[in-house]
Amino acid sequence: MKFYEKLAAAWENTNSLVCVGLDPDLKKLPECLKNEKYPIFKFNQALIDATKDHACCYKPQAAYYAGQGADDELFMTMEYLKEVCPDTPVILDAKRADIGNTTMMYALEAFDRYKADAVTVNPYMGMDALKPFLDYEDKGVVVLCRTSNKGAKEIQEMRLADGRELYKYVASLIAGPWNYNKNTMLVAGATFPEELGEIRQIVGDTPLLVPGIGAQGGDLEGVLKNGLTANKTGLVINSSRGLIYASSGTDFAEKAQEEALKLKNAINAFR
Amino acid sequence: MKFYEKLAAAWENTNSLVCVGLDPDLKKLPECLKNEKYPIFKFNQALIDATKDHACCYKPQAAYYAGQGADDELFMTMEYLKEVCPDTPVILDAKRADIGNTTMMYALEAFDRYKADAVTVNPYMGMDALKPFLDYEDKGVVVLCRTSNKGAKEIQEMRLADGRELYKYVASLIAGPWNYNKNTMLVAGATFPEELGEIRQIVGDTPLLVPGIGAQGGDLEGVLKNGLTANKTGLVINSSRGLIYASSGTDFAEKAQEEALKLKNAINAFR
Repeated sequence: MKFYEKLAAAWENTNSLVCVGLDPDLKKLPECLKNEKYPIFKFNQALIDATKDHACCYKPQAAYYAGQGADDELFMTMEYLKEVCPDTPVILDAKRADIGNTTMMYALEAFDRYKADAVTVNPYMGMDALKPFLDYEDKGVVVLCRTSNKGAKEIQEMRLADGRELYKYVASLIAGPWNYNKNTMLVAGATFPEELGEIRQIVGDTPLLVPGIGAQGGDLEGVLKNGLTANKTGLVINSSRGLIYASSGTDFAEKAQEEALKLKNAINAFR
Repeated sequence: MKFYEKLAAAWENTNSLVCVGLDPDLKKLPECLKNEKYPIFKFNQALIDATKDHACCYKPQAAYYAGQGADDELFMTMEYLKEVCPDTPVILDAKRADIGNTTMMYALEAFDRYKADAVTVNPYMGMDALKPFLDYEDKGVVVLCRTSNKGAKEIQEMRLADGRELYKYVASLIAGPWNYNKNTMLVAGATFPEELGEIRQIVGDTPLLVPGIGAQGGDLEGVLKNGLTANKTGLVINSSRGLIYASSGTDFAEKAQEEALKLKNAINAFR
């Protein structure tokens, strides 16, 4: 199945635009998991069980696994996701890009080794650096456009000679020539809802991955007002820290479920 | 020791500007290694033994290890480098960048898990996305500026409202405000020696990592003419495929040594 179709079905089946970010930091894990052999996997497993009816996507952040030597627990998490919610797209958040030969290896990492449905990538090196990803016509390629961090403007808002900011030009590439397989998405941070609206104007119905809700202080109402497509979808709204660390007690999964449901309902109230 | 000092000492001690790129592709490994338990590590080990007198740096490409599930062999390679050539800087080529919390995990991956001396990173998200790397004052941070791939111009050569191409603005950031710990380098491809010369004008003596010699067809003479600093250093000239696959027979390491020596001598003839 094509990525856009899988995503559309997940929006429909879960009645949710919420993406659960799986960014497990060993230092922040609930005490009750600290003696587990695979604490990260156990944490993720409980979160997945608790949130799967309210999540249209999952997004494991590769850095947390790479930085903590937990590649095996990322693998176990991906396997578990395929087992318990095979219809929910999984976006490996890795922000990769390199020259062609090397990018092919990163494509194998995301799509073959970890069996992700989509991967986040960085546009700075141009399309040829992303082509090995884009060529997977059933997979999604989520390209950074306007990121949620404060410093994003330093490069992304540079004004080009034609008057546009760089990110608007990048948006036109991602939804235009780079989307030859109809499998791209754009990252547009919730912390800049106006810019997100301008991106929506440029990219039509191309789906947006929206980080920055919750801990980063993004503006949910602004995101929805400016980012929803005509059929009231088009957005994958990620929350990581706000959900997964909602409690540090034994009720962490239950609290994550409550927060996911709360976010889902807050979003749906605007749809 | 600070990264710049370690690099300067390596240039001096090896009388070489050659960086050996360790990009092991299982499909291209010499037949004689195919039954090894750790073929990638054995390949790297032989290459390191053969080239260490001629290499000012090593640059393992993270994608090859991630894509082939060989994280353990990257670790073994990094340990081996520290053992046999502890004075030679090792650049983990990973092209990372993410929001602050997450970048910290990537910094742990590069500097703590793999003990690299430097890591390559992507500037698109701005300085705050790189700060966890930049804050390691003894480590090097090698930022993409003008990459060696054909499609690089699609974003990097966009003309800004002030008349500069984007990569020149990025160069001024990398060597300016982002270099608060005097630990940055820039990636400037050998395939664009004129642009490399313009970067040199902007960044003063800030060292450049130069990919694109060999398989990618870069112009060595142009690179040296435009890129050497007044003391005839300032460049880390990478070759990967041209060295490591110089032979597919049992003499692969010997041939890699010959190619490394040839490149070292060709460079030194211009210095």
